[in-house]
Amino acid sequence: MAIRTAADYLEDVKKLKPKVFLNGKRVDDLLSHPVTKSVVETTARVYELTTDQDFKKLLTARSHLTSELISRNNHACRSIEDLENRMEMTLRIAQEIGTCNYRCVACDAISSLSCTTYEMDRELGTSYHGRFNEYLKWAQGEDLALSAAMTDPKGDRAKRPHEQEDPDMYLRVVEKRSDGIVVRGAKLNQSGAIAVNETIVLPGRAMSEKDRDYAVSFAVPNGSPGMTYIAQYTPFTAERILAEDTLELGNPKYGVRETSLVVFDNVFIPWERVFMCGEAEYAGRAVARFAKMHRMTCGGGCKAGFADLIIGGAQTAAEYLGIEKVPHIQEKIVDMVRIRETVYACAIAAAIKGKEEVPGSGFYFPDDMFGNIAKLNVALGFWEIMELAGDIAGGILVTMPSEKELKNPETSEYVKKFLKAKVPAEKRMRITKFLQNWTAGLHGVGTWHGAGSTVTQRIAVGRLVDLEAKKRMAQRLAGLLEK
Amino acid sequence: MAIRTAADYLEDVKKLKPKVFLNGKRVDDLLSHPVTKSVVETTARVYELTTDQDFKKLLTARSHLTSELISRNNHACRSIEDLENRMEMTLRIAQEIGTCNYRCVACDAISSLSCTTYEMDRELGTSYHGRFNEYLKWAQGEDLALSAAMTDPKGDRAKRPHEQEDPDMYLRVVEKRSDGIVVRGAKLNQSGAIAVNETIVLPGRAMSEKDRDYAVSFAVPNGSPGMTYIAQYTPFTAERILAEDTLELGNPKYGVRETSLVVFDNVFIPWERVFMCGEAEYAGRAVARFAKMHRMTCGGGCKAGFADLIIGGAQTAAEYLGIEKVPHIQEKIVDMVRIRETVYACAIAAAIKGKEEVPGSGFYFPDDMFGNIAKLNVALGFWEIMELAGDIAGGILVTMPSEKELKNPETSEYVKKFLKAKVPAEKRMRITKFLQNWTAGLHGVGTWHGAGSTVTQRIAVGRLVDLEAKKRMAQRLAGLLEK
Amino acid sequence: MAIRTAADYLEDVKKLKPKVFLNGKRVDDLLSHPVTKSVVETTARVYELTTDQDFKKLLTARSHLTSELISRNNHACRSIEDLENRMEMTLRIAQEIGTCNYRCVACDAISSLSCTTYEMDRELGTSYHGRFNEYLKWAQGEDLALSAAMTDPKGDRAKRPHEQEDPDMYLRVVEKRSDGIVVRGAKLNQSGAIAVNETIVLPGRAMSEKDRDYAVSFAVPNGSPGMTYIAQYTPFTAERILAEDTLELGNPKYGVRETSLVVFDNVFIPWERVFMCGEAEYAGRAVARFAKMHRMTCGGGCKAGFADLIIGGAQTAAEYLGIEKVPHIQEKIVDMVRIRETVYACAIAAAIKGKEEVPGSGFYFPDDMFGNIAKLNVALGFWEIMELAGDIAGGILVTMPSEKELKNPETSEYVKKFLKAKVPAEKRMRITKFLQNWTAGLHGVGTWHGAGSTVTQRIAVGRLVDLEAKKRMAQRLAGLLEK
Amino acid sequence: MAIRTAADYLEDVKKLKPKVFLNGKRVDDLLSHPVTKSVVETTARVYELTTDQDFKKLLTARSHLTSELISRNNHACRSIEDLENRMEMTLRIAQEIGTCNYRCVACDAISSLSCTTYEMDRELGTSYHGRFNEYLKWAQGEDLALSAAMTDPKGDRAKRPHEQEDPDMYLRVVEKRSDGIVVRGAKLNQSGAIAVNETIVLPGRAMSEKDRDYAVSFAVPNGSPGMTYIAQYTPFTAERILAEDTLELGNPKYGVRETSLVVFDNVFIPWERVFMCGEAEYAGRAVARFAKMHRMTCGGGCKAGFADLIIGGAQTAAEYLGIEKVPHIQEKIVDMVRIRETVYACAIAAAIKGKEEVPGSGFYFPDDMFGNIAKLNVALGFWEIMELAGDIAGGILVTMPSEKELKNPETSEYVKKFLKAKVPAEKRMRITKFLQNWTAGLHGVGTWHGAGSTVTQRIAVGRLVDLEAKKRMAQRLAGLLEK
Repeated sequence: MAIRTAADYLEDVKKLKPKVFLNGKRVDDLLSHPVTKSVVETTARVYELTTDQDFKKLLTARSHLTSELISRNNHACRSIEDLENRMEMTLRIAQEIGTCNYRCVACDAISSLSCTTYEMDRELGTSYHGRFNEYLKWAQGEDLALSAAMTDPKGDRAKRPHEQEDPDMYLRVVEKRSDGIVVRGAKLNQSGAIAVNETIVLPGRAMSEKDRDYAVSFAVPNGSPGMTYIAQYTPFTAERILAEDTLELGNPKYGVRETSLVVFDNVFIPWERVFMCGEAEYAGRAVARFAKMHRMTCGGGCKAGFADLIIGGAQTAAEYLGIEKVPHIQEKIVDMVRIRETVYACAIAAAIKGKEEVPGSGFYFPDDMFGNIAKLNVALGFWEIMELAGDIAGGILVTMPSEKELKNPETSEYVKKFLKAKVPAEKRMRITKFLQNWTAGLHGVGTWHGAGSTVTQRIAVGRLVDLEAKKRMAQRLAGLLEK
Repeated sequence: MAIRTAADYLEDVKKLKPKVFLNGKRVDDLLSHPVTKSVVETTARVYELTTDQDFKKLLTARSHLTSELISRNNHACRSIEDLENRMEMTLRIAQEIGTCNYRCVACDAISSLSCTTYEMDRELGTSYHGRFNEYLKWAQGEDLALSAAMTDPKGDRAKRPHEQEDPDMYLRVVEKRSDGIVVRGAKLNQSGAIAVNETIVLPGRAMSEKDRDYAVSFAVPNGSPGMTYIAQYTPFTAERILAEDTLELGNPKYGVRETSLVVFDNVFIPWERVFMCGEAEYAGRAVARFAKMHRMTCGGGCKAGFADLIIGGAQTAAEYLGIEKVPHIQEKIVDMVRIRETVYACAIAAAIKGKEEVPGSGFYFPDDMFGNIAKLNVALGFWEIMELAGDIAGGILVTMPSEKELKNPETSEYVKKFLKAKVPAEKRMRITKFLQNWTAGLHGVGTWHGAGSTVTQRIAVGRLVDLEAKKRMAQRLAGLLEK
Repeated sequence: MAIRTAADYLEDVKKLKPKVFLNGKRVDDLLSHPVTKSVVETTARVYELTTDQDFKKLLTARSHLTSELISRNNHACRSIEDLENRMEMTLRIAQEIGTCNYRCVACDAISSLSCTTYEMDRELGTSYHGRFNEYLKWAQGEDLALSAAMTDPKGDRAKRPHEQEDPDMYLRVVEKRSDGIVVRGAKLNQSGAIAVNETIVLPGRAMSEKDRDYAVSFAVPNGSPGMTYIAQYTPFTAERILAEDTLELGNPKYGVRETSLVVFDNVFIPWERVFMCGEAEYAGRAVARFAKMHRMTCGGGCKAGFADLIIGGAQTAAEYLGIEKVPHIQEKIVDMVRIRETVYACAIAAAIKGKEEVPGSGFYFPDDMFGNIAKLNVALGFWEIMELAGDIAGGILVTMPSEKELKNPETSEYVKKFLKAKVPAEKRMRITKFLQNWTAGLHGVGTWHGAGSTVTQRIAVGRLVDLEAKKRMAQRLAGLLEK
Repeated sequence: MAIRTAADYLEDVKKLKPKVFLNGKRVDDLLSHPVTKSVVETTARVYELTTDQDFKKLLTARSHLTSELISRNNHACRSIEDLENRMEMTLRIAQEIGTCNYRCVACDAISSLSCTTYEMDRELGTSYHGRFNEYLKWAQGEDLALSAAMTDPKGDRAKRPHEQEDPDMYLRVVEKRSDGIVVRGAKLNQSGAIAVNETIVLPGRAMSEKDRDYAVSFAVPNGSPGMTYIAQYTPFTAERILAEDTLELGNPKYGVRETSLVVFDNVFIPWERVFMCGEAEYAGRAVARFAKMHRMTCGGGCKAGFADLIIGGAQTAAEYLGIEKVPHIQEKIVDMVRIRETVYACAIAAAIKGKEEVPGSGFYFPDDMFGNIAKLNVALGFWEIMELAGDIAGGILVTMPSEKELKNPETSEYVKKFLKAKVPAEKRMRITKFLQNWTAGLHGVGTWHGAGSTVTQRIAVGRLVDLEAKKRMAQRLAGLLEK
């Protein structure tokens, strides 16, 4: 039962009762609300792919804990090959769903916590690693859908957690009991927690000794007492709510990345689910390991997959309009491919040049420089891809009437007549809507900030580069060094 | 009565009965539907500004036909100073409304038709100019709200109008009668026609002799028999429809640029409203003159005004978060300003270096090179501004819950607590929503394609540059010429 | 005698005996040394243009002191029209000489000192303005060639002038005598001082009260006792020294911008030539006014002229190779034109929006924002132009044999055969050499740092922008302000 | 004897007597002329590195022909590991010499010819492969220095080889004899042929059947009868000629990449050295395989090494000036690193994703897409690196006096005083000169055109991308495909 089907997952979803609010109203049923449903459909599709003939080799792995065949979504990376497969799976899944794989963040958190709990136990004599392994064994065995949460509200950006006026601006332990801990705070920008079995929580940043109450990591079941999910609301949410048929939408079935503000209002976590509690100096390491992984997967692989969809959509639009042979159109396609392949190459290099972290742990992480570079390139490049695709599809990207008009007897003939090109209006409208989602919506900003905004990568690059070595090389050639 | 108030205009609007469809349904009343209402509110605001103490000097002018004080929105440019004021007004209005001044396209069409009808009469002995002047005198005298329509559906991009399989892919004259003409076709991407008194129609491109039926220009009252307006439908339309309070939205009162596909299904136009009919070679000139004006106004002034709003919003967001002194944030503000000022400088140069077109006509047009350069710079730069502002405001730009949650007793306290920064959550949410509209929506693509996509400007630049002169300079210095 | 001929100037040059060192050797005669000769030839050409039928209207002006017709090179700007002509002359001269007009810096210094001495006298009761006017009257009347010097050596960049370990890191007054002052220090990057009649010295930065000894400005005759000129030495210097015929070189007659390190080793300056001496707070103003002017002229006009030469050269090369109709080549030409026209538009806007500075002074300065924007755009754009032109001319730009081979009987036939294209080898080699000078040499760095490196412009932009106004606009629309 | 020392190579050089012309004069002795000497010194250094403890593992390999340990410079790639090492060696050597490894082109030609001769023999029954292997065995065994030549003069770019007016515009076979062939033509931009033992010649482009005389490949000893080498002449050539001490120069010992126009005036080539002769359809394959390899090595690895030197030089300069902590300086360093790592990541991906070409041949080539992407990124990025480094070092990069002044008693003290910063003037001058070579010279254009100008890579990218697959993905998600 280690690999579940989409149907298995959908059975689970029926039992989930998270307290979700969206657009000011409670969502009673995840499957009835069109927006939360898109999250469920996406996750179901990821389960489906895992058992699909073409994907299952890539999307499964042997557990290092049980040797059982498990979903790679719940697998910790144990080799270079794991890193390659981990990255490749983000690419392939992105191509299939065109939105967030809501299990992806947790997957990278699993590697981070596996390694960091191992390290804590070895260095501090704690017993987090065994505890985490038990938890993971269970999650792998049941093939649970997991999500993870990182970003704290942060309040005044100039102050550290313990300095904030409101001490809850970072999620923290407010009580330690014999049977567990009580946590309070919130996590922002959280992807997919509403529709998974469990959410893993990591600290949102490095912590100093004084911030030790904020150095906390744990797993929590969906909809635990005290948890409230306040969903994002964007124009795309509204559009999905108003749609009569999902085919009116840019990504009909899977939609955009849906997140929520997850509130923890005195949530109790039993000790067996606590993986860090007060070990301040390990908070930053857990974050850094997660980021190292996620900049390769989310920054590199996933966005290369998105780029494939945009390129494919733009080429389709060009052919529908009969302009695919025009030199400047071809130039623009090549430019998009250049960016896509650059990002992908950086992600490959990150995987291939990965190595074991914490010697003896057996856990592998990507090369940090190349992961950061992948993310930097995609942050800059994705806006350029949007610009190029937006050029090709034309102004109609932002001025097109609703596909509902095709069913409206008073306008249908007009729309068919005047929006046809070399193909009927319906086809053109659909590819235009598809590209609208990519070029006139959430993706520019989302790609920029996903896996950390670019300034965090720039800081990492500045820290990782060996300037001393480069200075020596230059000075030697310049005649400034003896040798 | 040559300068009307917003109230006067709103009286007019009550009488307008255009056949508008939006999201598959008929819009019965422009003022009741939240989306069409935003168009009305915007136009009312432009009327209001025209009588505002701070704006009226800029927004009014002396008619060259009657010497009466009129709205500059209905004024043809007769001097360099007019060009400067025309451009400046686009900047100032954009700063006030943050969306399209729906009278702007018609204003530039007035200059184009004034000049082109003068030229036709002089060269062909027609009587279009007098006819157009009569029409314009009336429109100026009544201070009518006018819009203009240009873009044809175009069908197969590789074929000229008369070669299209469906002859209606460009708007055309299907019948000439003693009292007028009958036209058929459609105009795409039309801004604001639904809520103005009249729409002026221009050809959408240069025409060859064989396309002469397509060389047609005229004015038509709102909602004339045979006209149908099929409104654009984007995620932002849906969001406005679903909003309980416009303050939930990014540009609460004025919204995004709303356009429609305007269908002309055998619409009768009396001769006194026909300004071109079969004079193929003048079609291209009318288009070129319009473009010359519009690349300066829409491409230059208006977008500089939008940039001001984005810069102001980003700076506000930075201050709310307490990061406005961080060097890389300041760098990004400076980069946005650099782009804004570049575009504005090009627009100023376009106005200042403008000149009379068709000697003796008295009509002035901007310098074509600088107008095209303004548009090129803003097309490229606007995406960069979006990227920079998106960086500053953070990922919450695309993950924020609805402002409705502030009124929802079950979530209100959580949202207030966790979305506050150095200011209360409400303020932060509002500026975030404001920036979402600019950076995660229609503006990148809209700015790129407005006033023609960049390839049209590039072609113009290639045609305008005097390469022979530059070759001579280079060759002379290189020792390749005697002198 | 207010407008001199090139011959007059050349007569003067014969009398100049500056102590010039170049490549480790004393230059005995400015006209015999090929490098210093290029400076003389360039300056002679500027004199020649001033009396040329096509240029004289632009290159002359009425002195505001004597009403005499004078060279615009020695004229202070007294109106918007003066600013326009000042900028335009930099463009036109750049197109003719393809290198530095060595009188240009002094011209902008004249406006700065005219205004600043006026201001000092009015505010401090000094008599610098009258003194400067006497000096200027003489220089205008004699039509002297003037240069100006600004940049100090600066030593440790983290320290202010008076904090430096070596007090001479900024040029300073070391003694005040009854008849004048003695100055010590040096000026770097000085353009053209070796071959002019006089050099005007300005402070290199704003000064605090403690730096008052460094707040000094004066004029000094070429080769005054204590002055030493240590000339720049680059690969281009060597190439000119080795050339048998200047036609072997990229800019045969006028060469590259030649500068020197000008040392002032206890140089005596009589009081009537001292224009600032200890008025610390005016040092920064003099610098700022100079920069305001120079970013428009050197950053805007001049570099637009250089761009014309590069575009003309690249188009010539493309035609010689038969590739001028290839779409990507045409795209690149258009891109170069876009950058050129952008810079030029900013310079025009700077001139047109200029205004009187120090009310009542009568001296006009360009708009500071647009001048800085012109410079920023050219700094970034010039590298791009180099890239584009380098693409067009091909790898031979950096691999071509010497034109001397065309005269070498052992290689001549080979070179003629194998380097011909659609034109004979000689023509192709010459345009290639011309472009080598622009794309594979000093111009990228030179354009970046000329008139101050970009960080100084960015600081200026950050200071000039009215963020408060933009914040208000944004907040008003976002519903954050009452009105 | 398969790995020779630098001394061995220098012995060889003494025997070489190529007919070299430079700056219009015959070069009698490669070791006496400062420019040709730099080529010899560079090549000697590469020999030296091959026997250096730190490098020898990377720079040697087992011959697939003899299993002997040989220089990797003469090794064909037989595995992914070979590809990785081949790329890595270009990086490491570039860091050490800061100029061209003149054996590099031949190394990539060896892989191309190994594979293509194998393919010809298998498909055509020729015996080129055995012949080439014999030649290669000898070259490997003797550890000869080899160079390769590709680029033909090309004449009129619009015409194919056989259509040219002058049939020698591409190198061709003019006579076939029983003992060999006679070739005529020339190769441009040839790196290093003057100072190696042998030159391998490849066709410069794909050939049609009618161009079959141009489909020729062979090896030729240095200075064979009929060969003339006409050396490039740039400002840097002149500077080296005039230098008294190489420490005055930017890359003192190794200089810039020196090339020549190599003329073949009826050169006889015995059959055992002919590797292609008339097999038109294989010409393009040989070129493509070479390019595939060279875009990874020259475009990726080598330029990453150059970037390291520039970054190291810029950081050194910043520290010398005391500005290394200034935020915008640090930003610029990070930007350079970003570009460097991007290029390097693409090169790694190219190697890792390489595969055997011509099944059964055993010869490995890099992934073509990633190789092309590496080259595209470096072409665009290198100009940006130049801009950034140029910013950091300051205007003095192009205005600095000669280091000779430090020895000139009349200027020495002045230069020491006024060019010191936080370090003595000599150190600052040396790093400035070092950076001048990188930012104000041949590298922008050289990097752009090396391994083919960017348009060739763009064409390759357009050909390699699988648009059909991407269209399917997009259409499936957009609801345009059933599955």
